[in-house]
This record gives sequence, structure tokens and C-alpha cells, in this order.
Amino acid sequence: MATTLITGGTVVSSTGRAPADVLIDGERIVGVLEPGSRLLGTDVAASVDRVIDATGKYVIPGGIDAHTHMELPFGGTAAIDTFETGTRAAAWGGTTSIIDFAVQRYGERVQDGLAAWHEKAAGNCAIDYGFHQIVGGVDDDSLAAMRSLPDEGVSSFKLFMAYPGVFYSDDAQVLKAMQVSRDTGMLTMMHAENGPAIDVLAQQLVDQGKTDPYYHGIARAWEMEEEATHRAIMLAKLTGAPLYVVHVSAKQAVEQLAWARDKGQNVYGETCPQYLYLSLEEQLGAKSDEWGSFEGAKWVCSTPLRSREEGHQDAMWQALRTNDLQMVSTDHCPFCMKDQKELGVGDFRKIPNGIGSIEHRMDLMYQGVVTGEITLERWVELTSTTPARMFGLYGRKGVIQPGADADVVVYDPNGHTSIGMGKTHHMNMDHSAWEGFEIDGHVDTVLSRGKVIVDDNAYLGAKGDGRFLKRGLSQYLI
Amino acid sequence: MATTLITGGTVVSSTGRAPADVLIDGERIVGVLEPGSRLLGTDVAASVDRVIDATGKYVIPGGIDAHTHMELPFGGTAAIDTFETGTRAAAWGGTTSIIDFAVQRYGERVQDGLAAWHEKAAGNCAIDYGFHQIVGGVDDDSLAAMRSLPDEGVSSFKLFMAYPGVFYSDDAQVLKAMQVSRDTGMLTMMHAENGPAIDVLAQQLVDQGKTDPYYHGIARAWEMEEEATHRAIMLAKLTGAPLYVVHVSAKQAVEQLAWARDKGQNVYGETCPQYLYLSLEEQLGAKSDEWGSFEGAKWVCSTPLRSREEGHQDAMWQALRTNDLQMVSTDHCPFCMKDQKELGVGDFRKIPNGIGSIEHRMDLMYQGVVTGEITLERWVELTSTTPARMFGLYGRKGVIQPGADADVVVYDPNGHTSIGMGKTHHMNMDHSAWEGFEIDGHVDTVLSRGKVIVDDNAYLGAKGDGRFLKRGLSQYLI
Amino acid sequence: MATTLITGGTVVSSTGRAPADVLIDGERIVGVLEPGSRLLGTDVAASVDRVIDATGKYVIPGGIDAHTHMELPFGGTAAIDTFETGTRAAAWGGTTSIIDFAVQRYGERVQDGLAAWHEKAAGNCAIDYGFHQIVGGVDDDSLAAMRSLPDEGVSSFKLFMAYPGVFYSDDAQVLKAMQVSRDTGMLTMMHAENGPAIDVLAQQLVDQGKTDPYYHGIARAWEMEEEATHRAIMLAKLTGAPLYVVHVSAKQAVEQLAWARDKGQNVYGETCPQYLYLSLEEQLGAKSDEWGSFEGAKWVCSTPLRSREEGHQDAMWQALRTNDLQMVSTDHCPFCMKDQKELGVGDFRKIPNGIGSIEHRMDLMYQGVVTGEITLERWVELTSTTPARMFGLYGRKGVIQPGADADVVVYDPNGHTSIGMGKTHHMNMDHSAWEGFEIDGHVDTVLSRGKVIVDDNAYLGAKGDGRFLKRGLSQYLI
Amino acid sequence: MATTLITGGTVVSSTGRAPADVLIDGERIVGVLEPGSRLLGTDVAASVDRVIDATGKYVIPGGIDAHTHMELPFGGTAAIDTFETGTRAAAWGGTTSIIDFAVQRYGERVQDGLAAWHEKAAGNCAIDYGFHQIVGGVDDDSLAAMRSLPDEGVSSFKLFMAYPGVFYSDDAQVLKAMQVSRDTGMLTMMHAENGPAIDVLAQQLVDQGKTDPYYHGIARAWEMEEEATHRAIMLAKLTGAPLYVVHVSAKQAVEQLAWARDKGQNVYGETCPQYLYLSLEEQLGAKSDEWGSFEGAKWVCSTPLRSREEGHQDAMWQALRTNDLQMVSTDHCPFCMKDQKELGVGDFRKIPNGIGSIEHRMDLMYQGVVTGEITLERWVELTSTTPARMFGLYGRKGVIQPGADADVVVYDPNGHTSIGMGKTHHMNMDHSAWEGFEIDGHVDTVLSRGKVIVDDNAYLGAKGDGRFLKRGLSQYLI
Repeated sequence: MATTLITGGTVVSSTGRAPADVLIDGERIVGVLEPGSRLLGTDVAASVDRVIDATGKYVIPGGIDAHTHMELPFGGTAAIDTFETGTRAAAWGGTTSIIDFAVQRYGERVQDGLAAWHEKAAGNCAIDYGFHQIVGGVDDDSLAAMRSLPDEGVSSFKLFMAYPGVFYSDDAQVLKAMQVSRDTGMLTMMHAENGPAIDVLAQQLVDQGKTDPYYHGIARAWEMEEEATHRAIMLAKLTGAPLYVVHVSAKQAVEQLAWARDKGQNVYGETCPQYLYLSLEEQLGAKSDEWGSFEGAKWVCSTPLRSREEGHQDAMWQALRTNDLQMVSTDHCPFCMKDQKELGVGDFRKIPNGIGSIEHRMDLMYQGVVTGEITLERWVELTSTTPARMFGLYGRKGVIQPGADADVVVYDPNGHTSIGMGKTHHMNMDHSAWEGFEIDGHVDTVLSRGKVIVDDNAYLGAKGDGRFLKRGLSQYLI
Repeated sequence: MATTLITGGTVVSSTGRAPADVLIDGERIVGVLEPGSRLLGTDVAASVDRVIDATGKYVIPGGIDAHTHMELPFGGTAAIDTFETGTRAAAWGGTTSIIDFAVQRYGERVQDGLAAWHEKAAGNCAIDYGFHQIVGGVDDDSLAAMRSLPDEGVSSFKLFMAYPGVFYSDDAQVLKAMQVSRDTGMLTMMHAENGPAIDVLAQQLVDQGKTDPYYHGIARAWEMEEEATHRAIMLAKLTGAPLYVVHVSAKQAVEQLAWARDKGQNVYGETCPQYLYLSLEEQLGAKSDEWGSFEGAKWVCSTPLRSREEGHQDAMWQALRTNDLQMVSTDHCPFCMKDQKELGVGDFRKIPNGIGSIEHRMDLMYQGVVTGEITLERWVELTSTTPARMFGLYGRKGVIQPGADADVVVYDPNGHTSIGMGKTHHMNMDHSAWEGFEIDGHVDTVLSRGKVIVDDNAYLGAKGDGRFLKRGLSQYLI
Repeated sequence: MATTLITGGTVVSSTGRAPADVLIDGERIVGVLEPGSRLLGTDVAASVDRVIDATGKYVIPGGIDAHTHMELPFGGTAAIDTFETGTRAAAWGGTTSIIDFAVQRYGERVQDGLAAWHEKAAGNCAIDYGFHQIVGGVDDDSLAAMRSLPDEGVSSFKLFMAYPGVFYSDDAQVLKAMQVSRDTGMLTMMHAENGPAIDVLAQQLVDQGKTDPYYHGIARAWEMEEEATHRAIMLAKLTGAPLYVVHVSAKQAVEQLAWARDKGQNVYGETCPQYLYLSLEEQLGAKSDEWGSFEGAKWVCSTPLRSREEGHQDAMWQALRTNDLQMVSTDHCPFCMKDQKELGVGDFRKIPNGIGSIEHRMDLMYQGVVTGEITLERWVELTSTTPARMFGLYGRKGVIQPGADADVVVYDPNGHTSIGMGKTHHMNMDHSAWEGFEIDGHVDTVLSRGKVIVDDNAYLGAKGDGRFLKRGLSQYLI
Repeated sequence: MATTLITGGTVVSSTGRAPADVLIDGERIVGVLEPGSRLLGTDVAASVDRVIDATGKYVIPGGIDAHTHMELPFGGTAAIDTFETGTRAAAWGGTTSIIDFAVQRYGERVQDGLAAWHEKAAGNCAIDYGFHQIVGGVDDDSLAAMRSLPDEGVSSFKLFMAYPGVFYSDDAQVLKAMQVSRDTGMLTMMHAENGPAIDVLAQQLVDQGKTDPYYHGIARAWEMEEEATHRAIMLAKLTGAPLYVVHVSAKQAVEQLAWARDKGQNVYGETCPQYLYLSLEEQLGAKSDEWGSFEGAKWVCSTPLRSREEGHQDAMWQALRTNDLQMVSTDHCPFCMKDQKELGVGDFRKIPNGIGSIEHRMDLMYQGVVTGEITLERWVELTSTTPARMFGLYGRKGVIQPGADADVVVYDPNGHTSIGMGKTHHMNMDHSAWEGFEIDGHVDTVLSRGKVIVDDNAYLGAKGDGRFLKRGLSQYLI
């Protein structure tokens, strides 16, 4: 097995930073060492197979994106990134693990859904991957099946309070599934929007001829995110289930999470870069020669972008500082404008919901360090350490310490990254939701289990490098 | 310089635990290594001067007690532990750093106060020590002097909203001092009790003949802790100063901290073991042959013990879980019953305020792990990592990583510790406030900057082992 | 037309009390006069047809019970009080108006439901009566029909978030109905319990053999009342509808109401005597020779009785003081033990839900004046003035002033009332939920539109005295 | 004694409105009658001495301004309205009672202060007047003296948390005074601003050359109003005293009041027209040829005008709707620009604090009815009925009912009132803080104890019409 030394850099953890060298043997980290030292008389750098010079750079645990949707069937089409293209783009951006969502729907067996996703992913991934289980059809069979998921390394499942007729669970179903969560220790993940109410509003808007992408965000009012968040919290309280609310975007939803957390309830929340940087107002203003006002479809996602005037974006950043939100994932769910998003011309309800960001999450969040929104340590915590703890990967992932997988990123704070089509991104979309964003930093080198898969702006990995991650239970309960 | 390897143990950090060996060269940690490995061909254990076997045990960063009062003059007497006796007791209990309080009073120069405390401590300490500065007399001179404290490694100062005529600052003084805090980045520490109001209540109780120690807690009503906490928060908000509230004991005070933190304000709080384990009801019930109902004087401290029926103790534990409180210190301020506490026979106001716990903090908090109140990681975070971050010591202290001082404790979860006089504690008091407490764990070995100072129930250190810690600014602002 | 003078009493309004005489001409009050005065030279008492001496007594506007269910079909049986028996019992107790609920269900026309209730009531009532409209089946037809209800004097409608398959509306239906509420100014009344979740819990309890009446309250957990209350508030906020939550029993539900009201939302709540006086613990303890532990069925109502240990009853009283709850109604829905409640022997879910209190509301609330829970003025406000304002009756009802209907009660604070079967109540039940309650006051004389219908413990009215009340819109919006 | 009938109008109370005639005999109301009726055969209008035609107009209880400062010594000068000029202006504006503040200061006897104010007022007032007692020097003597105030008809006293060295009480003093409040039932009124902190900020601003009137509002930051409000609440909670916070202007202070009220504490608050209509931004923008930027001095009052951008004005209106504030008083404290306000040219601290509004309160609040901020009933409640209840005058004042003093205003909703110097106001100032305000209503006729003192834009009263009001205890405790 080859040995590698990453030397001269500053190792950043969720609690602090320090100059240190990282010694890798094969796939794992075997030592974190005083920099430049002659360890017990040995010149370490001279003794290893490969030395990576990280002088002046940050050495961080590889990013973990705990919310992706490769190849997700949605609205008559499917997310355009395959596990191959999506995970490769992730690698380019310094993310070395994803947790994607296997899907079960009404009438389908949970095990079959999980097996189908295993099949999609196996042998195709650039980086390691795990699964959450979407349970889109809660019934006696699926409830029974869910209990065996932890043994398969799937320690979390997701329910939807939105999308009636597709993924939706009513409160009786949510309650029953949460009882399984309480019994097994699996984390209940929740898409918290009141779908039945939103669908009424959406229908009424369309009936009024308000069909532009912008009205997607009007229909999905923050009141219905706040409401569903509270409801999920109370059902979790009733059952004793731990709860993780995905893609939080409304400041009032955060207030509900904070309220529950202050009382000691095991409730968590993630937000996504789009809710930190993008806004409903910008979506309203989006126009292009090619697409006219349908240009806004690029930013149709659910939960939707929120009004900047109402202060949601600032509230998300604040919540990341106050730890009322604990993680940043992407909800990566990419669709092309051509053939996909354009299905919704004339009816925003038919626009496939999703934004592709998997490649940019680490950069976009680092920019928050540059602008002073978060600390360097919090950057690592939000993007890697907490995801690992939250989803049962800590020790293997999310930390630079002996015994951990050698998933390491060398990040250059003096580098620069321009995002957008002109500079070519590596996701499968025909556009970028992040066109024009400039980042004052750069992913220089990415190691996945000891293998350098990105270096010097080149992809050095291969399809199939990534392996399935059997996850344990959450290590993050209050 | 001698090399040491702590091998076979589980290294616990604030985010997780993992089997790892810790390599020490002289005073510092130089490597954290995969256990048992032959590192780059070298048999590490065979290459070091000393091997400490930590098999089956936890290896944690040495405890940091950020709130102690050695030799504090108070009420006509002085805290009975000298820097020598107090820090030695700390070492026995797995604490390897303290931050004590230098005192300035009206009419005194801040620099003189600091110098006096340097004199008391220098050459006498068993472990490393730093200082906060009590500013008991805020005036133009002291305000000017405070600005130079960070350069002297004193990056925090404490004000009192209690004790009029002794340490008390009025709101005008607090405001001015907080402006210095904002300008310099020094942390404002606050004793948050409304002293003028409390003194009225105390006088009225004494006038009614209610002079027993128990009435100390009645006079110092939780409403006046809540109120002062809110006031300190608002003054901090007005000025932009970071605020750290010491010895929080009332659940309503925690609610105020949570309220401010939810809004994104840089507000922190510590509690102490006495507020987690002891109660006003027990103090009321305390009687002994020797002291009668004056027995309760052993637990006279400020803030006081709170009512268990009102739920304060449970609220403190919960706040430690929810991170509405971030640290546990002791407020170690020991007085003997004989000659000291007994000054207050017949008038509880004359009982010197304080409890001695410096030796037991790590054990008492570990017992919270045993009973499920906190996780093992949170134990380390509350007692070591966060104190280091909060008070500008992180990197040197509070973490096990290369470059850090080799302050390490080997803690045995299969050991046992009985607290109390019969088993002899090492503090200078003639009694123990913790008599009869049993701990399901044991401090086996303690290293201070690489030197084994406690091992196998023996003290191996020497007076003067400890050095002054020049601290940086807090690394823990939201 | 006959003239009446009520003389010598203390007229109590919602803001104060004062000695005053009330002059009635025919059905209406025509003057409120300085007591005993010779009005412009006329000896008033000598000039009227009838003088009622109220010396030493309170003269108050007749009670308005805004929540009754005469003859309500429920669970295969029907509430046992007819409009005749129920309104007569009301009169006995000092209540001179009721607002009952007309019922529409799925597949039925709203107008037909209203017509059916008109038929039940017309010619049978002892006192005036109005209707709210239950809309148990929200669809396009019923939504359209609802818009004409205000013209028919029905200015409020009720939805159920509980009882799936019976009265239940899902959130899409609630949203649409609330839009009608916003457009028309009709008040949305809400049974706020999460029925789908509760039904799961109830089924699980029955499956575990927990079939006693007590488990009714366990299944209907306060978390599910709190949740539904919050949901109703948010749907009301989204639509702009005014909201009135019926039979609030959980302190956490009140907290939600207070939260919304503090933000200026038009949200109201009522509680009922049972939630002020009775508790889950007492229901658990209820046993009798005749019924064994099924005795508890007497107190099966929804929302259920709550735990006294958890403090719900105290919280209800407090909310009546703080105006976070604005009214006290009975939710009068009486069932006999024999043949009715006993349907649920062996399965608490089959016990018809309801308690009969219409006769005792004024007395039970007056007892709250005696015990100091509320003021005399608040008693009048909660039981008469606010109901009148809330439901569009003010001016005609709810106040003693010229032009108002002469619905007046002479209440003797020196009288006494014993409640229960032995003393014979006048409701149609074979038991009393209030057996053994003693009241330090007495309803002496009751006038309905100028006619004395109760006096000196005799009923002097007749079937058909009461007329339908066409109500206007709520006069009580914030 | 003469008899008067006010006929044809709509009598408005705090709960509703109804057509009714008001019959007055001498100084008191003796009947409220059905309009136009021949009462028991008598033609009422033909039988009285005087008929006032109120057709198309509102008939309301005369306004009660519970916060005025006639002839108050302040900052080396004194409020320019005497009891004669101030109460006459009040009468012009439909206010028929005031409660002014007698003043006691350090070293003075409370009784002497009260006697001095009696002397100023006796024989000079146009309308009835009562006194609160300012206790500016809390010591054993004044505490003892306060206990006899209720017997003198002074049932409330005011403390200041601002103005150190003038009226200021420290927390020990506040606590002791509140104990008297608890014991006697007297209402504690509080000027809630943290004076010591504000004075530091003010000094610093002046030191920086920021001496314009605008900086008065900057120094008196909302944080220091919020803080003092919370502190007063907690001291009231500790002692059990009822608390009334005067001139609330900060939305965060209202949040504190709402927080305490939601918990059931007897806490009340008033705001003033200036905090509803005027803003800090306008004060900043104020400039004139005569005064330059010192023009802003016209609006220097304490608490100060608040920022409109921060939303304080909207929050005050909302709080009036939600009943988190219960009353609107003026804090009438008028100073001329010439010779008085100009004392503060070059140092805003020397500007006498105060605005004159006593003449305009009823109009300004009625305009809130016109613009939809409050209801007509709430107007009466805020300006008359609640002040009467709050300060022990109800029955005599604040309501139109038999036995009450005939203090009645006929208000014409079709009239118009232009405020300002050009239209001549009747207060003693050389300017108006309300210059240019237009009101869509008009005070037509004002009766004080049965005597018409204003009618048809003429003042018909006389110096000395007004008598001292011995007040009872507050009738408004929760």
C-alpha cells in the first residue's frame, strides 16, 4: 500500500485549526503529525511514496453532501446527473461522499426500491456513497421493511408532507413511520411543506393565468413551510422520534426549529446554498433572450427561493451561526432547461423541481467564510463533520484523524474559482444556476480513500472508485 | 527531551471518539497515530522513552477550569486554597489548567491587582494557570488600563452586578467597560445578580430573624438572576460586546441566554457542578450535630443553590445538551467551616460565599455521562475544548493534536471514585460539599506538558510545575 | 305592551358595576335609570306594570351559550337534548340565547342541512337561538353555498380537523373554506385536533386492550391539539381569515393562540367549564357499582379532559384572565349512559363524545368569581358580552342598554345552587357530569325578551318562546 | 338642578355602539334611554331644561388623560401650561379629566409635595383633576408616607429608572416602593429607561460634538427602554406589585410587556400619540429658518421618538389592538421653543423634555379610527373607559351610565379639525408639535359634570370648574 504525506498545510477541524502533516497509508489516515518533524528520528517526508505540499493551504476532511438525487424520476423525466456524472462533479468540488435517496412508492416494496438504487450506483461512482430511503408509500409492508434498513446500512428515511399523489404521507402515516424511527433510532428526514394547501394555491394561480416560474415560489408560501415544520416537530415530540428537516428556507421555519431545540427536542435542520444566496426577487427578475421570463425555471426548486426583502437569506446565515441549522447540503437535483425544465412552459407546476449545486457547495460555503458569515471551522463542521456525525459516518468520514478514511481536500485560500458554463462545470446540466458566482478560494487536491482523484484542475479518478457506505445510527442526538 | 506514547486507549474529542495512540515529545504532542501501527516501519512503542498503557480507557485533553478563586479575599477572610494547594487538588482531579481571577478594586490600579496575583501564583502552581481580571472599580484609570490587558495575555475581565460596595459596578460602569470589550475583543464576564435588590431582601430577612444559611438562597431569588442576565444581555447588545455569564443557576436565566443566542448575539454561559447536583431543599434539610442548621453554610455560594421542585437542576442539564450553556467551571472558592464559614453564624450575609469543587469537576461531569445526561464527547467539550476556545487557549490546550501541550488525562470508565473527607480529598477545606458522592470512573493518569503528575493514585508533580498562560482572544464568537 | 322595572340591583357589565334600574317596555330595554329616582318627576316604579325587586342582587345580561349541539347525530345515536329540553334547561341556568350547529356532511347540500336544523328548532325553543353551520363536506357546491349564509343570518361556520370520514376536512378543504371566510367576513370556527394521528393512537390502544374511557384522553394527546391549533392559525394567516378555536383544553394550545394574537392576528378561543374544573386524573379514578371503570364515560368529550398535574386547568383560568381565551361556552352535547354512552363498553372509540352543561355554565363560571379566578365583570364578559360581540348579536344581546332585547338575569350572590341528579337538573340525561358541585350563588329570575321565564325556582316559559336569531358579522375582530 | 337631554346620537362604549339618549340631572347622568321614546308616557325632550341635538354624532364619555405635567419643574424651567391653561386646552379637545403628577424629591416630604400640587391646581382647573404621586426620593420617610396616599385619593405613584440625580430611584429603592404597592394595592407607575446607561451615551455624543436635538433619540436607545421595562417587570414579579409602564415607545418594550402579560402578571402599559404618529427620522429631517436643525427640539421628549424604519410606530398601533398596551395618555409636558427648549442649543441634554398634546389626544386617536388602526369602541376604551378603570375612577368617569358624572363629549365624525398654530390651539406653547395634522372629526360639545363647557367652537367654562378627584384603587388588575 502506498503512503502519502500531506505536508505544510493547516489542518482545519470543526473546533480549530493547526499546522499539521497528515500521513496516509493506503486508504486510511494513520497519523496526524507535527509539521516537518522528524518523527522519532525518521524523516517522514522522505519515507513516504508521495508528498503533497499544502503550504499556505487548508487541509480539510472531504465534503459530505447528505442530500442528493441522482437520476431521480420526477414529473415525467429524471434528474439529469447519473451517479457517474454527479459524483464526478462532486469530486471536482471537494465533496468525497454523498448520501443519495433510494425511492419507494405506493405499491412498491422498500427493499426493491433500495435494490434499484444500489443497481444505479454500483460501479459508477467517483466517490463513496450511501443511501437514505425515501418511503413514499407508508403502509404495513413498508413499515415492517423499514425496520431492517439499519442492518443494511441505511439509517435514515425521508417522508414528504408535500407532493400528494406522488411521495406524500398523511399525518397518520407520518406518525406510524416516526414510531419506527423512535424504535430503531433511524433518523426521520422530512420534506416539510403543506402539500395539499400548496396545491390549492398553485391551481388557483394557474387558473388566474399566473403560470410563470416565479409563481412556483408564490404558491409555496413560507407559511406552509413553517406550518409543516411545526407539525413535524409535534409529531416527533409525540412519538419520541429524532427529526431532521431538509432544505429549510423560511426564517419562520427556523424559528420553529429553534423553539423545539430550546426545549431539548432532538430536532435538526439543513439548508442549501440556494437559500443562502438566491432569492425570489432575482427569480422574478430573471429574463433571457432564449427563454424570456421562463428563464426563472432554472431556480425552480422546493422548498422555493424566498424573498430577500423578507430577510430569509440573512436568517439562514444566522441560523448556521447559532446552530439552529446544523448542516448545508445541496439537494442536488439537476434538470436541463431543454427538454426538462421546459416541460413547464405555460404551467409552473410542470417544471421539474431542482437545482444542481453538488460541485459548488464547498466553494459557495467557503465564500461565506470570506465574507465573514461563518468561521473557517464552522465551514468544515457544516459541510463535513456534522454530516458525518448526523448520518452515522463519523470516524470514517468527516474528520482528519488516525483510522479515518483518507478523504482529504487541500483548499487554497489564495486560489480563485469562477462558476458557470463559460468556465465549464462538470454537472450534466445545460446551464448553471450559479452562473457568474466568483469564489475567493479553490479546490486544489482531492483524495478519496487515499487516492488523488482531483489535482491541478484535472480529474484523475475513475468510474467505480466509490463504494457503498454502510452507515450507523446518528451520533448527533442532543 | 523524553518521548512518551499513550497507547491502546480511545481518544475522545468534542466531536467523536476513536482508538488512537498519542505521541509526546517533551512538552508537546507531536503525533496522533493509528494504534499499534508500525509507523513507516518504525515500532513506535519500542522507540519511545515511556509507554503509558491506556487500554480500555479514555484519553482526553486535560480539564480546564476557567473559574477559580485561589486566595480570594472575601468577607474579611480569604479562600483557603492557595495556588499551591488548589492547583494540586485540580491535578488530582484531571484538571491541568485553571484560569483564576486577579482582583482590582476601587482606588486600586488594575496593573497592581494583576501583579499581585502573579506574585501569589508564580512558582507555586502544579498546573498551568491564566488570569481573568476582576475590575471591581470601573473608572477612567481602570478603563484605560484594561485596554492593555490583552497584551499581557489577559483577554477577559469580570464585572459584578452584585456585591454593592465591594465589587459592584453600576450600569454606567458596565456600559463603559463593555465598550472596552467591544473595542478590544476581550470577553466580558458577568456575575449577573441584581445586588442592590438582593441586599434589601437579605436585610429584611435578617430583620425578621431569618438568619440561617438557607435564607441566603431565599434572598438571592431567581428573579434577580434572570433580571440581571437580561440586563447584561441588553447592555452587551447595545455596545456590541461579547458576553459570558458566569455560574448560571436559574432556568429562567438560561431562557434569557437562549433568547439572545437565538437572535444571533454573542452570549455565553457556564454553570457549575453544584447547580447540577445540589438543591436549596437539601440545604434547608442539612443539619449536623456539630453545626446544627448552620450545616447549610457549607453550600452557601452565589448564585445560590436553587429549588429542585422548580426544576432548575434539570434545566441546567438540558441547557448543557442544547448548548444554551457552553461550559462547566467550578467557581472554586473554598472556605472552612471553622473560622471562616462560621463568621456567619447568626447572619447568613456574613458567611463567606463559595464551594470548593476543583478536584471533582471532571468526575462529577463524567457521572453525567454515566447517567445519560450528556454524551462522552460533550463531557470533553464542556470541560476542556470549549473552555480552551472560549478563553483563547485552543491549540495549546483543550485538544489532542500535534502542536498542543501534552496535557492529557487517562480516564478509566471501569474505575471508581468516592468523594469526601473519609476518602481524603486534596483541597484545603475542613469539609467537603460533595461528601458521599460516588463516581463510576476514575482519573488514572494525568500529564501536564508531558510530565506525569498524577499516576496510580499518587501525586508525582511539584510546586512550580505550572506556568502562566498568556491567552489570546476568544476563538468562540458566534 | 307591558312595562317592567327591575329595581334595586347592581347592573354588571363587562367593564364595571353600578346600582341602576332597568326599565323594560315589551320585549326591549328602554331605559337604564338611576335607582329609585323619580324620573323627571315621574315615580317610575309606580308607573310600570311589574316591578322586580333585585335588591342585593346582580342584574346581568342573559347568558349566551355559543356552542351547543341539540339532537346532534353522533356515533350512531344522537344528543339526547332536543331543542325543547335543552333550551329549557338553559333558561333554568340563566342562559337566554344559544347558537347551535346546523350540520352539512359529504354529499349533502349546505342549505338542506340548515333547513333541517331550522325545522328541528322552530317552535320548540324556550329561548332565542341562532345557528353556526358545520360544513362537514367542503367541495365546490358547499363552498358556493357558504357564501349565502350571512344573508341567512348564519355568520360563522365550523370545520373539523378531527373525525376523518365523518366531519373531517383536510388542509386543502380548510384552505378553501377559509378563503370564503376571508371574502365574506364569516368567522371560521375550528375543532383543532389532528384526527388522523389521533385515530392511529386510538387504534393502537384498543389493539393493546386499553379500551376504558380513560384511554380516550390518552389517545387525544395535547400535542395533537397544539399541533392542529398551530396549523389552523397558519392557514388562517395565509388566507387572512378570522379564526375561532372551539373547546380549547391544552395549555400549549393556548400558548399558540397567545403567540398568534401577540402578532396581531385575528385569532380567538373559547374554553368550556369541563376544562376548567375536571381532569383526566379524576376520569381515571372514576368507578361506580353500576358501571365500574366505565363510569369514566360520563366525561368522554373531545377535546378530552386534560391532566391536572400538567397544569392545563390552571392555564385555562389564567388564559381567561389574560384574554388569550375570550369566551366560555359549554359544547353542550349530552348523552345518557344507558343506551348511549354504553355503546362504547369495550371500545372507548364508540362512546358518544359529549358532556351536558348548558344548565350550569353561568353558575359554574360564577363560582370562579367566588374563588377569585375571575372578576364579576369578566364573568359577564365571558358568558354574554363577548359571545354577543363575537357572533354578531351585540346590541340586541349581551348588554343591558336601551334598544337591547330584555334578556336579563337576576343573580343572587347570597343564594346557593347544588348541582346533580339528587337535586334534579333539567337536562335530558340520566346522569350529571357535575354531580356534587356546589355553587355560592343562584339564578333567581330570568327574562327573555321581557317575559319572565324563570322565577322563584319555577319555569314560567313555554315551548316556542324562543325565536331564530339572524346574526350579523363578528364585531370582535382585533 | 337643571336637566339636559342629549338626543339623537349614537352612544359609544368600549364594547359597542347604540342609538340612545342621555338624560342628565344636575351633575350626573340619571338615565340612558331609548331615543325619542315617550318614556312611560312622558315626552322626555319636552320635559328637560336643555336639549342637545347629537343627530349623526357620537356621544362618548369625556376623555381622561392620565398622564399630564402642568407646571412641572424640569431642567431649570417649568412646563409652560398652568393648571388653568392646560385644563382649558384639554376641555377644548374633549378631555374632561386629567391625572397630573405631584412631585416629591430627595429631602422633601411626600405630603408636602402633594400639598404643593393641590395648591397649584385648586380653583384653577377647567375640568376635574386627580394626582399621581411622583416619589423622586425613596427613603424610609417617603415609604411610610406613601402608605397614607390611598386615603387621600392618590392611588398610584410613579418612579423613575431614568434621570439620575433628579427623579431616579435605584433598584433597591424601586423594590422597597413596590413592596408598598403590593401591600396597599397602589399602582406602581414606571418611567422605564436605564438612565445611568443613557447618560453615559449622551455624554459621549456631546463629547463627539453631536449636540443636535436628534441625538437625544440616539442616546436614549430602545435597548435601554426594553431593558428597564424588563427590569421593572421582574421587580414587580418579585414583589407582587401591579405595574404600569408609562409612555412606551419601543416595540421591544411592548414585547416584554406581552411576555409578562401572557404569563398572567398584572402589567400594563400606555403609549402616547407622539409614538404613534411621529418618528426619529422626521426629527432628524426637521429644519427651519428660525431654528435651523434645532427645530428638532420641538419633538424632544423621553422616551424619545423612535425610528419609523425599525417599525416602532406600527408596533404601537398593533399593541393597542392586541391590548398589550391598554391606554393612550399624552405625557403632556409643554415647553416653548423661546426661552425654554432653546436652553439646549449646543447640548441636547439641556433641552427640556416634553411635548404638548393634551388638546389633541381625542382627535389624534379618532383619526386612528378613520384610518382603520383601531375601532370606534377601542377609541373610547383607550382614551376614557380603561383610564377610569385603571386609576380608580370607573363609575364616576369613563362610562355613560346612570350615576356617572355627566362628563360627555359630542363628537362629529363629519366635522374636521386642523391642528397647528395658524388655526390657533389653546395650549400655552409658542409652537405645536402637531403642526399641520388634519383630523376627520370634530369635538362639538363638551359637558363636564353636566355643564356645557365647550360648544360650537366656544369655551363656555370657567376657571375653577374642575374639582379634585379622590381616586380609589385600580379596578383593572388581571
